[in-house]
Amino acid sequence: MSMSSSVDMPATGPGTILAPARPVVPTVGTRRGLALTEMVLTEGFWAVRQQVNRSATFRHCLDWIERAGWLDNFDRVAAGTTGPDRPGWQFSDSEVYKLMEALAWEHGRTGDGEVEAQLLALVDRIGAAQDEDGYLNTCFGHPGRPERWSDLEQGHELYCAGHLMQAAVARARTHGPDRLVEIARRVADNVCETFGPDGRAAVCGHPEIELGLAELGRALSEPRYVEQARLFVDRRGHGVLGPIPLLGPAYFQDDVPVREAEVWRGHAVRALYLAAGAVDVAVDGGDEELLAAVQRQWARTVERRTYLTGGMGAHHQDEGFGEDWELPPDRAYCETCASVASIMVSWRLLLATDEVRYADLIERTLYNMVATSPRADGRAFFYANPLQQRVAGGDVLPDAVNPRAEGGLRAPWFEVSCCPTNVARTLASWQAYSATVDGDVVTLWQHASADLRVALDDGGALGLRVRTGYPEHGRIVIEVVEGPGRPVRLRLRVPSWARGARLQDPDGSVRDVAPGVAVVAGDVRPGDRIVLSLPVEPRLTWPDERIDAVRGCVAVERGPVVLCLESVDLPPGLGTDAVRFDESVQLRAEGDGARVGLVALPVPAEVDGELPFRASSAPAPVGQAVSATLVPYHRWAERGAGTMRVFIPVVGTTGRAGTSPADERVSGADIRDRR
Amino acid sequence: MSMSSSVDMPATGPGTILAPARPVVPTVGTRRGLALTEMVLTEGFWAVRQQVNRSATFRHCLDWIERAGWLDNFDRVAAGTTGPDRPGWQFSDSEVYKLMEALAWEHGRTGDGEVEAQLLALVDRIGAAQDEDGYLNTCFGHPGRPERWSDLEQGHELYCAGHLMQAAVARARTHGPDRLVEIARRVADNVCETFGPDGRAAVCGHPEIELGLAELGRALSEPRYVEQARLFVDRRGHGVLGPIPLLGPAYFQDDVPVREAEVWRGHAVRALYLAAGAVDVAVDGGDEELLAAVQRQWARTVERRTYLTGGMGAHHQDEGFGEDWELPPDRAYCETCASVASIMVSWRLLLATDEVRYADLIERTLYNMVATSPRADGRAFFYANPLQQRVAGGDVLPDAVNPRAEGGLRAPWFEVSCCPTNVARTLASWQAYSATVDGDVVTLWQHASADLRVALDDGGALGLRVRTGYPEHGRIVIEVVEGPGRPVRLRLRVPSWARGARLQDPDGSVRDVAPGVAVVAGDVRPGDRIVLSLPVEPRLTWPDERIDAVRGCVAVERGPVVLCLESVDLPPGLGTDAVRFDESVQLRAEGDGARVGLVALPVPAEVDGELPFRASSAPAPVGQAVSATLVPYHRWAERGAGTMRVFIPVVGTTGRAGTSPADERVSGADIRDRR
Repeated sequence: MSMSSSVDMPATGPGTILAPARPVVPTVGTRRGLALTEMVLTEGFWAVRQQVNRSATFRHCLDWIERAGWLDNFDRVAAGTTGPDRPGWQFSDSEVYKLMEALAWEHGRTGDGEVEAQLLALVDRIGAAQDEDGYLNTCFGHPGRPERWSDLEQGHELYCAGHLMQAAVARARTHGPDRLVEIARRVADNVCETFGPDGRAAVCGHPEIELGLAELGRALSEPRYVEQARLFVDRRGHGVLGPIPLLGPAYFQDDVPVREAEVWRGHAVRALYLAAGAVDVAVDGGDEELLAAVQRQWARTVERRTYLTGGMGAHHQDEGFGEDWELPPDRAYCETCASVASIMVSWRLLLATDEVRYADLIERTLYNMVATSPRADGRAFFYANPLQQRVAGGDVLPDAVNPRAEGGLRAPWFEVSCCPTNVARTLASWQAYSATVDGDVVTLWQHASADLRVALDDGGALGLRVRTGYPEHGRIVIEVVEGPGRPVRLRLRVPSWARGARLQDPDGSVRDVAPGVAVVAGDVRPGDRIVLSLPVEPRLTWPDERIDAVRGCVAVERGPVVLCLESVDLPPGLGTDAVRFDESVQLRAEGDGARVGLVALPVPAEVDGELPFRASSAPAPVGQAVSATLVPYHRWAERGAGTMRVFIPVVGTTGRAGTSPADERVSGADIRDRR
Repeated sequence: MSMSSSVDMPATGPGTILAPARPVVPTVGTRRGLALTEMVLTEGFWAVRQQVNRSATFRHCLDWIERAGWLDNFDRVAAGTTGPDRPGWQFSDSEVYKLMEALAWEHGRTGDGEVEAQLLALVDRIGAAQDEDGYLNTCFGHPGRPERWSDLEQGHELYCAGHLMQAAVARARTHGPDRLVEIARRVADNVCETFGPDGRAAVCGHPEIELGLAELGRALSEPRYVEQARLFVDRRGHGVLGPIPLLGPAYFQDDVPVREAEVWRGHAVRALYLAAGAVDVAVDGGDEELLAAVQRQWARTVERRTYLTGGMGAHHQDEGFGEDWELPPDRAYCETCASVASIMVSWRLLLATDEVRYADLIERTLYNMVATSPRADGRAFFYANPLQQRVAGGDVLPDAVNPRAEGGLRAPWFEVSCCPTNVARTLASWQAYSATVDGDVVTLWQHASADLRVALDDGGALGLRVRTGYPEHGRIVIEVVEGPGRPVRLRLRVPSWARGARLQDPDGSVRDVAPGVAVVAGDVRPGDRIVLSLPVEPRLTWPDERIDAVRGCVAVERGPVVLCLESVDLPPGLGTDAVRFDESVQLRAEGDGARVGLVALPVPAEVDGELPFRASSAPAPVGQAVSATLVPYHRWAERGAGTMRVFIPVVGTTGRAGTSPADERVSGADIRDRR
C-alpha cells in the first residue's frame, strides 16, 4: 500500500490489529467501533493534531503535572510523608490518570517506545502509592489527610478511581494485562467491597466511576464491576448526596434518577460522564428503559441546551447547563471537558442505535470544541469556550498556573487543569470514533485522509484509502484496496448540514444523497473508487427564535466548521461588537473562512452617564460598509488577544421591526469592490 | 398639624429633631441630608414598607439570626467555649450588626421602645464577646478558631467591623454615646492600631471598613478614623491581597487603585461599598481627584453596566459586574445588597455635587430593587433579582435556610443572608435619602406623602405637607405649613423619565418643567400650595443597540416603576417566553400596571433532537393575538411561582430585518375588543 503522507507513520500500522484497541466495547451487540490500529490518519486536520498531541502535549502535561506537585503527591503517599499541606485540588490525581490513558492509547495506536516509557514511569509512581487493600488516592486516607470516603460530595475519590480505570482499560486493550491493569483491578475490588450491595449505599459527587467500572469490567471480563457501575447509576438521583454550599442537588444530578430525567442539568461534565456510564450499563444489561432515558435526555439537551459549536454548559457559576433556550454566547461556559464527555455519550449511543444524529454531533463537537481548546503548538488550552469575547484577553499568565481561563487566550495550565489531559486522550484515540463495523458492513462516520484496514467479523479485512482536503474541501475520494473476497457493504455519513451532497458509486454514476447514511451501491471490492462530494461553501445559520441571547443575529458555517469574526480581521479600532452583518452581500469562501459584508456602527459618543435605555427605539444605525474574513472558530485567538463573535447582529434588527436601512446603505457589490 | 394617615404615627414626629439623625454627614460642605426625624411618611408606597419593616422584618431577621446560631457565636466567645465548629459563614456577625443598624435608625426615627429594647439586647450579647484590646469577631481569634487577621482575603473581619461601626453611627446620631458606641470605638481603635500607618499595610477582601470608619470618625469627631479609612482606600488596587481560588484581583478591586479606575468591576457589593467609602474620604479630605474618579466610574457603570431596574451585577459566578453592555436579563445577578450599596454611593455623590442624576438612579433603584426584594409581608426576600425568569420557581424552602435564591420565589433566609438586613436598614432610614437642605434652600429629591419639618441652618424650620398617590399617580401636592419668617427656596426633582411634567407655582400659574431640578418660583411661605404633575402613563423603553442580550426587545415603564409580564397574567399554558410584543397595540394604564397587546407563538413541536440552528431564518412566527396586564416588577412572584420577563421580544424581529407579519395579524383594536 502506498502512503504519501505528511505525517510520520507509526511502527505499527494497518494490518497490525490489536483488537479491541478502542475505548468502548459493549458486551452486547454486533456493531463495534474501529480499533485504533485499523486506521492511520495520513494527513490533514486530525493527523496534524494527533501529531502535535504526541510531539508536544504529552510532554507539556507531564511537565506541568510534575511542576504542580501532583506526582509528588503519589511519592509522598509511598514514602509515608503525607501531611496537611498537599498541592492541588482533591481531584489532581485524575490528571495523572487521564494523561496515562492518553499515553496508553497513543502507544497502542503507534507502538511509540518513548510514549510507553513515559507511561510506565507514571505507573511506577502511582503504583507505589497504592495501599495494601487496593485503595489509591493522595488526598484522602493517609496521615495528616482526611479519612477515606469522608467527603463523597466533593472529595472526588471515586472520580479519580474511575479515571484510573479508564487508563487501565486503554492499557489492557492495547497491550494486555500488566502492572497498571493490576493496580486498577485492585482499586476496583476495593471500590466494590466498600460500595457494593452489602457496602455503603453511596455515590460520588462527580460521576466517572460508573463508566470506569463498566469499561474495566468489560476489558477484564469481570461482570462484578459492571454490576457495581449499575448500582452507582441507580442509586443516584434520590438525594443520596449531602448538601453543598450554595448549590442544590441538581448540580451533581442527585435530584432525579437517571432513568426518570428528561434533560441534562447541573454541572455539565458530571451530567455527561454519568450519561456515558448509564449507556454502558444499559447496553450490557439490556436495560432498554435506561437507554431510552439517555436518548431522550440527549434529544432535549441537543435541541435546547447546546451551542452551535456543540458546546454544552451555559453557566459559569456551577459549570452547568442553563434552562432550555438559555444559550448566552458571551457567558457560554462550554467547558472543553464537557465536549469530550459529550462525544463519549454520543459515541456510545451511536454504537447502540446506529443513528446518524449522534455522529453529526460528534463531528460538530470535534471541529468546534475539541479542536478549539489546544493552541496550534499543543502547549496552551482553552478551558471555557465562549462564542463571544467582548474584551480582548490579556490576563493569561504565559508560564504559570492560571485560574480557569476567561481571558480570551489559551493558557498553559490551570488551577483546575482537567481540560489539557482530556483533549490529549481524545486526540490520541480519534480513530476510535470515526467508523463502525457490523458484520460485513463498514460505516465511515467521520471523514479524513486515512488508510484503513478493517478486520471483518467473518475473517479477512476491508482496506480503504481515503483522501480528502476535508473540511476545507468537500471532495472525499475512497479507494478500496483490499477485500475479504465476499460481498461487503460500505456506508458513508452525509452530514446533516450537507444539502446538495453527491455520491459517485463504484460504477461511476453520480447521484444526490440526502443527509443521513448513504449506502454505496452494491458490494465494494478492491479497485473500486467512490467519491462523496459535500458542499462546504460558506452558509448562513440562524438561531431558533426561542434563543433570547442571539436574537437578531446570524452565524456563518463552512461544512462542519463554525466561523467567527475576530477583531484582528477588522479595520483598526473597530471591535467585533461594533459591526452589523449585511445580508445583502453575498458570502464567498476565502481560505478556510468566508468573506462577508458588514456595516460598522458609528463611533460611540463619550460616556455621558445616561442609562442605556431610551424612550424611543433608535433607528437602525447606519455606518460605513466594510468587509471582513470570518475564520474558523477553532483557530480564534491564535493571532493574539482580541475580541470575537460567532453570532453577528443583522443590520436592521434593533428592537423595532422593519427598520432596515437598506436604502441608505452602500450596496453589497460596492462593499466588495471598494476593498 | 392634621395627619390623615393610614400609618401609625411614631411617638416622636416632626418637631422632635435629633439632628444629625442620618447616615451620611460629611464634615465639609453646607448641603446636608434630611434627618430621619424631619420627615414622617404619612401613607403610600414607602410608608407601608417602612411599617412592614418594623412590624415584621425586624423580628423575622432576629428570629432567623438566632435560629441560625449567629448570636450564639457571640455567646460562645463570651463564655470562652469557641471551637472548630461554628455555624455560619465568616461574615455572619455582620448580619447582627446590620440588623442593629436598622433597629437604631428605626428607634431614632420613631422612638419605638420595643425596637430599642431589641437593639439593647443585641448590644449586650455582642458586647460580651469583645476582647480586652477591643477586637470583636466570632470567627477568628479565639480558641479553636483561626488566628486574628489570618485570612484577610476571605475572612471578612474588617468587613464585619465596618458594619458594627455603621450600627454605632446610627446609635450615636439618634441617641448619643452609649455602650454600642463605645464598643465600636474600641473596635476602631484596635483596627487603627493594627492597620495604621505604623501597622500592617493591608486591606480587607471585602470593603466596608472604609465607610464604617469614615462615618464613625465623623460621628465621634475622631479624624484618626477617617484617616484610617483613607489609608484603606489608597492601599487597595496595588495587588495587596493574595490570590483566591479561580478569581483574579478584580474580584475585590485589588487590580487598579480607586483613583485610577474607569469603571466598577468585580464583585458588585464590594465595588460599591468601596466607592461609598472613597467618596466619604474624598469629601472630608478635599480630594477632588478621588471624587472625580468615583464620579467617572459611576457614569460609565450606569451607562454600560446597569440594568433598567437600577440593578448592578451581571454574573453569578463572582456576584460581579460584567463587561460593558453585558446585561443578560435571565442571569442578571442584581444582588439586593448591591442596590443598597448603589444608593449609598449615589447619595454621597448627590450630597457632594447636587447633581440630579444621582437622585434619578436612587429612585429607580428604590422602586425596582429595594422594593422588589421583600415580600409584601416582610418575611421573605429576593437575593438575586433577574429580569427574566425562564422556569417557574419551586425550589424555595419556605421555612428553612435556602441557597442564594434563584428559584423565582422569595426565601425567608439564605446561607448567605446579607440581603434581608440590608433591606431593613435601608427602609428604616428611607427619609434620609429623600431631601437635602443647603442654607435656606430645601430640595425634595424623592416624592412621597409626608409631613416635613426641616430645620434650617439659620434657625427656624420649613414645614411641608406633601400628599400624592405617587408613583401610581403623578400629581404631587405640596402645602407649606411653616416658615422661618424669611425667604426660603424650594426645589423639586423632575425625574429624567418625566417628559411633559408641569409645575403649578404658589401664584397658581402652571408651566412646563423639564427633567432635572425645578425651582419653585419665588420664595415659599406658609399657605403656599405647589403642585407638581408628573406623567406616569405607561411608556415603552428601548434598550441601547449595544446590549446584545435584549436585542429586539422592549420594556414598559410607568413613572419610576419598571413593569414586567408574569405568566400568571397570560392564558393558561402560555409562558412569558412564548409571546411577542405587538407595538401596534396602544398601551393603556391598568391599575398600577399596563395593558399591552401580545402575539402568542404557536405551541412548539415535540422535541426532535435537532440543534436549534437553521439554514434559513424562520419567518416571524404568527400566532394568536392576546393581551395581558404587565405589573410592577417589584411585585413579581407575589402570586406564586411563575415565569416573568421585563424585556419582551417585539413581533417581527427574529433575526432578519423587515419580516414583520403585521399584515397577517389580527389588528390591535381587535385584540383589545376580543378580551
